[in-house]
Amino acid sequence: SFLPAATTMSTLWSVSSCRRSLQCLHRYPSYHVKRTLRVKADVVNRPIFGCTSHSRTIQTKSINKGSLSHQAIEKVCILGSGNFGSAMSTIIGKNASSLPFVDSQVNMWVYEEDFGNRKLSEIINTEHENRKYLPGYKLPENVVACPDLGTACKDATLLVFVLPHSFLPHLLDNIRNVVGPSCRGVSLIKGMDFDPVQKRPIRLSQMIEKGMGRDFQCGVMMGANVAKEVAAGQLCESTLATRFKSPDLDEQTRLIFHRDESFRVQHSYDVAGAEACGALKNIYALGAGFVDGAGLGGNTKASLLRVGLHEMKQFCRTFFHGVEDSTFTESCGVADLITTCYGGRNRLCAEEFAKRKHLMGAIDSDSCHALWNQIEEELLKGQKLQGTHTTLDAYAAIENENALRDFPLLKTIYGIAFDSQPVKTIVDGIRVTNR
Amino acid sequence: SFLPAATTMSTLWSVSSCRRSLQCLHRYPSYHVKRTLRVKADVVNRPIFGCTSHSRTIQTKSINKGSLSHQAIEKVCILGSGNFGSAMSTIIGKNASSLPFVDSQVNMWVYEEDFGNRKLSEIINTEHENRKYLPGYKLPENVVACPDLGTACKDATLLVFVLPHSFLPHLLDNIRNVVGPSCRGVSLIKGMDFDPVQKRPIRLSQMIEKGMGRDFQCGVMMGANVAKEVAAGQLCESTLATRFKSPDLDEQTRLIFHRDESFRVQHSYDVAGAEACGALKNIYALGAGFVDGAGLGGNTKASLLRVGLHEMKQFCRTFFHGVEDSTFTESCGVADLITTCYGGRNRLCAEEFAKRKHLMGAIDSDSCHALWNQIEEELLKGQKLQGTHTTLDAYAAIENENALRDFPLLKTIYGIAFDSQPVKTIVDGIRVTNR
Repeated sequence: SFLPAATTMSTLWSVSSCRRSLQCLHRYPSYHVKRTLRVKADVVNRPIFGCTSHSRTIQTKSINKGSLSHQAIEKVCILGSGNFGSAMSTIIGKNASSLPFVDSQVNMWVYEEDFGNRKLSEIINTEHENRKYLPGYKLPENVVACPDLGTACKDATLLVFVLPHSFLPHLLDNIRNVVGPSCRGVSLIKGMDFDPVQKRPIRLSQMIEKGMGRDFQCGVMMGANVAKEVAAGQLCESTLATRFKSPDLDEQTRLIFHRDESFRVQHSYDVAGAEACGALKNIYALGAGFVDGAGLGGNTKASLLRVGLHEMKQFCRTFFHGVEDSTFTESCGVADLITTCYGGRNRLCAEEFAKRKHLMGAIDSDSCHALWNQIEEELLKGQKLQGTHTTLDAYAAIENENALRDFPLLKTIYGIAFDSQPVKTIVDGIRVTNR
Repeated sequence: SFLPAATTMSTLWSVSSCRRSLQCLHRYPSYHVKRTLRVKADVVNRPIFGCTSHSRTIQTKSINKGSLSHQAIEKVCILGSGNFGSAMSTIIGKNASSLPFVDSQVNMWVYEEDFGNRKLSEIINTEHENRKYLPGYKLPENVVACPDLGTACKDATLLVFVLPHSFLPHLLDNIRNVVGPSCRGVSLIKGMDFDPVQKRPIRLSQMIEKGMGRDFQCGVMMGANVAKEVAAGQLCESTLATRFKSPDLDEQTRLIFHRDESFRVQHSYDVAGAEACGALKNIYALGAGFVDGAGLGGNTKASLLRVGLHEMKQFCRTFFHGVEDSTFTESCGVADLITTCYGGRNRLCAEEFAKRKHLMGAIDSDSCHALWNQIEEELLKGQKLQGTHTTLDAYAAIENENALRDFPLLKTIYGIAFDSQPVKTIVDGIRVTNR
């Protein structure tokens, strides 16, 4: 089932980086393999220049590679260059260098800002390091920072969305007409949007598809991927959920993210389930931080995660169609929930929130919001907290659906995070139900 | 569905301690409630003496309570007084004091040993503390340590098995004919036995049922229950899996373990699934310890847990019938796996094993066994490591079934724990499978 019946060069390429496929390659005439490798060497040895001046080189390469394939060469653009975007650029950059069907230059759109009297994009393109958001980790030299959106997206076949979701409306308006009709997207954003009128959750990949128009297709990649560990090359897993035009295209996309030695990507068709998991787990990470901040134990925390996983499932049943139960035990589900609840920034800030709120006593909603802002500023230094927004939005949607009784833990987390409810009441949300 | 159609006094009692049931009680004539409470007060105010001299008091009590019920008063005996047994005696002891349908004296069989020139049972009965295995936590005064098995089990209606499973054969031989025909059991032992001839796993509750004979029924209780946190009264959850003679009896048993403010117990009918989870999770706790010992990150560890959960499911599919998928997302499944992989003693010892083995280089199987014994002795001070035995037995069973390819993580953990495989190869066992 791994290789389709008709094995064209493009399918051969699409499987060339993983162990199983190497075994498969042996079954095909050796000239195919040799030719692929020779062409690749020809392509990757070229020098990499700055973003704008480099666009002509890209064209040449695309033609070189394209002549070997029934399919256009992939051109990846990463939209966002924060902590996680920079970390993912190390994976995608390396893959673009080694995969024969991918243009080796990966553009990364940078929201331009100054950092120590220099432009951030300039620092990235000369030092190959995002000194502001991912200091201490080298980015591959074929990852090129572009402050101009249009230049970054030019000729892209795959857009990787990895930036705060508040950027999306402006971003989509500016790239809608830049990319070609065969371009597609993968969102790595772990959040949700909510329709303020209907008070129903809107998945960000749906929002992207709508904003891009013209049958633009957008999948998601979600998993246990704390940024620094990805950048350090430690083994991570992820779930790529896409329903592109063909299984070949799904697999080709998977290979752009997958690295067998460090970043293992599993494909799934459950886009809604994977995306909802990625957003909702941040709510329960706040709960995990409250448990830690209140000095409760490991049993309590593990139980909170169990209930959280159930409520994530319940949320999907309430608002989305066709979500599969198995999604919750994949990397995007249980693994991401665990890693976020033990190591992520939402947990960290929530632990701090719990300690301070406990000292402050019963504070009102406005003071809660102020306290979150203060902690975000002090602890994250420019990065944004996603869990608080998701909690507010999910709570509003559930309340509107009159379904709060099905979400005792989310309700408790909301009460502690945004109301006068004491931190130690977190245990009230961890309930067993008897069958 | 909570209260059966025919509400006798015994069903009223069986629901009297949980919040939902208190609401139910209001629907019944108030004299029922008052009478129950009055009788209870009459019973619990009596002095508690030593084990043997106390048996006459028990008789009197049983008659007092029995006259109010169609059913015999429950008499609980805890078999085992180690770390977890002592911790659970705090829960069961408190419940026996407050539940009207349970005799307030709870016997706890103690494997007699000397501790600081005194008998352990004497220390427990005078200091109400298990100074050896759970120092620093008071046991309820109605928990009475009995070094004599026959005395401990006399008149028991519920046996709680919580001791190393190597004790079972001798224990069962000695209590088989002591208990009455209506006695039943709940096993809290997180391990497995293996048939050396057929090389198939035998669940310990099955082994207990067989050893006790006469249609003795044994369920299990498994969950995220690190002993010290249970003893400290921190919120814990557990899954009680029983298929006793009636749903009433299942619920009555649940109430003996459940405490709403600290120890929340959910009932399940999936005995095999719950029991297998409790045993198998210790294998993956070794893997988690290897990840920690090798200095790998939180993403890697979360992924290991995900694969572990899948392999636990796969193991059940291979060897047991009728295990439900939902069991793996209950307290006995995912929650216990998490708490054990982040806080349990198997993880702790495996972390130490990983560090030392790494320094020792490629050591053979015998040296591995010796290293485990040394670590167990140094770190656990008399407590036993369950994960190593379970790994050996599960490996043998899977190998015999010719199914090792379905268990890449277990195979890797075995290779590191008992063969010359380097610790850093733990990542080889964490594989994604594409659908």
